[in-house]
Amino acid sequence: MKLEMICTGEEVLAGQIVDTNAAWFGNTMMEHGIECQRRVTVGDRLEDLVSVFKERSHEADVILVNGGLGPTSDDLSAEAMSLAKGEALVENEIWRERLENWFTRNGRVMALSNLKQAMLPESAIMIDNPVGTACGFAVKLNRAWLFFTPGVPFEFKQMVYEQFIPFVKQRFDIAGDVALRKLLTLGQGESSLADTLEQIDLPSGITIGYRSFMPHIEIKLFARGVGAIAQLDRLEAQIRFLLGNAIVACDRKSLAEEIHSLMVNSGLSLSTAESCTGGMIASQLIDLSGSSSYLDQGLVTYSNESKVRVLGVKPETLDDHGAVSIATVEEMAKGVRSILNSDFALATSGIAGPTGGTDDKPVGTVAIALATKGGVYSQMIKLPRRSRELVRSLSTAVAFDMLRRELLGEAVIVDYGSIGRFQK
Amino acid sequence: MKLEMICTGEEVLAGQIVDTNAAWFGNTMMEHGIECQRRVTVGDRLEDLVSVFKERSHEADVILVNGGLGPTSDDLSAEAMSLAKGEALVENEIWRERLENWFTRNGRVMALSNLKQAMLPESAIMIDNPVGTACGFAVKLNRAWLFFTPGVPFEFKQMVYEQFIPFVKQRFDIAGDVALRKLLTLGQGESSLADTLEQIDLPSGITIGYRSFMPHIEIKLFARGVGAIAQLDRLEAQIRFLLGNAIVACDRKSLAEEIHSLMVNSGLSLSTAESCTGGMIASQLIDLSGSSSYLDQGLVTYSNESKVRVLGVKPETLDDHGAVSIATVEEMAKGVRSILNSDFALATSGIAGPTGGTDDKPVGTVAIALATKGGVYSQMIKLPRRSRELVRSLSTAVAFDMLRRELLGEAVIVDYGSIGRFQK
Repeated sequence: MKLEMICTGEEVLAGQIVDTNAAWFGNTMMEHGIECQRRVTVGDRLEDLVSVFKERSHEADVILVNGGLGPTSDDLSAEAMSLAKGEALVENEIWRERLENWFTRNGRVMALSNLKQAMLPESAIMIDNPVGTACGFAVKLNRAWLFFTPGVPFEFKQMVYEQFIPFVKQRFDIAGDVALRKLLTLGQGESSLADTLEQIDLPSGITIGYRSFMPHIEIKLFARGVGAIAQLDRLEAQIRFLLGNAIVACDRKSLAEEIHSLMVNSGLSLSTAESCTGGMIASQLIDLSGSSSYLDQGLVTYSNESKVRVLGVKPETLDDHGAVSIATVEEMAKGVRSILNSDFALATSGIAGPTGGTDDKPVGTVAIALATKGGVYSQMIKLPRRSRELVRSLSTAVAFDMLRRELLGEAVIVDYGSIGRFQK
Repeated sequence: MKLEMICTGEEVLAGQIVDTNAAWFGNTMMEHGIECQRRVTVGDRLEDLVSVFKERSHEADVILVNGGLGPTSDDLSAEAMSLAKGEALVENEIWRERLENWFTRNGRVMALSNLKQAMLPESAIMIDNPVGTACGFAVKLNRAWLFFTPGVPFEFKQMVYEQFIPFVKQRFDIAGDVALRKLLTLGQGESSLADTLEQIDLPSGITIGYRSFMPHIEIKLFARGVGAIAQLDRLEAQIRFLLGNAIVACDRKSLAEEIHSLMVNSGLSLSTAESCTGGMIASQLIDLSGSSSYLDQGLVTYSNESKVRVLGVKPETLDDHGAVSIATVEEMAKGVRSILNSDFALATSGIAGPTGGTDDKPVGTVAIALATKGGVYSQMIKLPRRSRELVRSLSTAVAFDMLRRELLGEAVIVDYGSIGRFQK
């Protein structure tokens, strides 16, 4: 089965919207063992839509079309499909009734423009949308089924899961035995990882891929077939042996998710005191539901005064060593831990740039400390030639990894390939 | 001139990467008055690349190709172009030398695989990349110039600005008189905004568009031609008159950016104490370089204990009114303001969901306070039927808008169309 995607909308084409639906769709299909082979993005011009529907209908078996089902005048997907197919738009009575009920139930008056959302090409199969006013629909044209979905992400995702995937599986033979394993790495570049892993003789049916999402590179092991899937554990062990400390999580979307899971399971508590990372450590955890069970507090203490008044850092420590120093960051971590007697505390203080560097402590110098009930671990790392954003996200990742290693009972401070460290 | 884009890479097609380059490119071209008319995304298969290069070369004048210039075996753009054009790959000596120098300068040994990056189709014009190891190149095929760019975002963007736009302007007549004005709104849906603005008789040459990026909807006024551009001010005034409080910023990427600019210019200082927004207020400001000049501290105080110990909220206030209450959030704001005697403080406390709601205070109930040297403003808003993420981002936006209005000397607490409020 050959699957393609057509994304519509000026706002997608002209980049006012980053097309997260497209990425999500490609990823989701891949995890179901179905490869999307081409994606075409077009604007809202009727003739462009008609021509791309016709053109791709000769090339693919299934085309998922996203967007253009709304009530406004630039929502043209149904009209374009009816022109491409050469048939009229007719009102779908079931959907019209659903629309009227939906507005009544929500205590709102239906705008006349919404009626348009019940007009479908004559031969269309209506596809239910239980969470929005735009129904989907499917039309057969030439070789392809064109399957139309709304642009609103949560409506789109629900329709793909509940309607599109069953629709495809019912009509085509999908080889379902696939598995994907993802290893999250820290501190090595993609080419360095690839060079190291090149020596592995990959079992047949397994492909290896890399995805760079700063500050991490993710190694993806994609296995097709029962035999290949059975080899994944052995392959993962081999990769862990070769890469050592670089691997920080398995099958997690982020290192924060790994920390979240470890903290929830541990029943222990955490406080944070951040300077250069500016709340990134806390906010990556707070994004995850349930973080309030272990995150006591997250303090962003930018100014020296705030470090002294809120965290109890000694003014003479700041005078003698500076804000970006092992001594200060250790007092920050100990200070924030003691306020609520948390089990752990993480603290950062550094120079994220682009300005503020000195000869001794250039931009990219970041001190990080982990305080526990038993003591405090600290290091000062060097991240030269990185952007402000990357200095902050790398520092956050190193801080998380210190906590992760402590939670697993491993050495807290280790070397990562491309991250330097000051001698104490 | 007809412009198209081809994005390459399994990781883009399969959604392991959200294609921010594509959105950025569409947006940037639009702001230069050049419309990108189609975008095709394909994977790393050589035959797919060759066929899409050939196919689109008959349809467009200029095709920007992004990705596939790296050193690894799945980087196939140059090879595919040489096959499409029917000519050999030859080593570009200038780029080979640049590569060798680049690695020497960075104290690294060049991997043999990097040599591949100097192999270009015979007729290619080499395009400089001063910030990476992948040079770009341009090849004429049939109707089109295909212009190849690296996938690494900052290399890509620099090449577009410094090489691609001049390349296009040199060869095609681009009508340059365009202007875009963006009005950021809060608290009204897209169809409600569109219904209100439908009564405006748009000056010729101006189009109006909407971009939804939660919790905001942005109104875009795109003017083409000197006459249309001259009408923008009058049109903006008309829209402001019709929409009132809904408009919270003009030509800003976010409400945080507006606050950032107002705070920097005011010379005043801010502290924050966040519960349900979990650091979102502070982190949106910290993302902007220069925020340390006004942001004294940003405290995330989840637990009642933290509110008492760090902010000085009275235990009896929490007992009598609960953590989510006007009384508590006012004490949070006053407390965090007084620690460093900041000029302003924002505080939030609410129920972001999905659990934690009660009959009196259902999920989506959020108390927000702004403390100033003169007193404290507060309100408790209702955001029913919103996701956890949306409750947090809407609350953050309302808090920012309270501060914005205070900084502009306007009434701090106002009604927004779709945001309810508890009576005090």
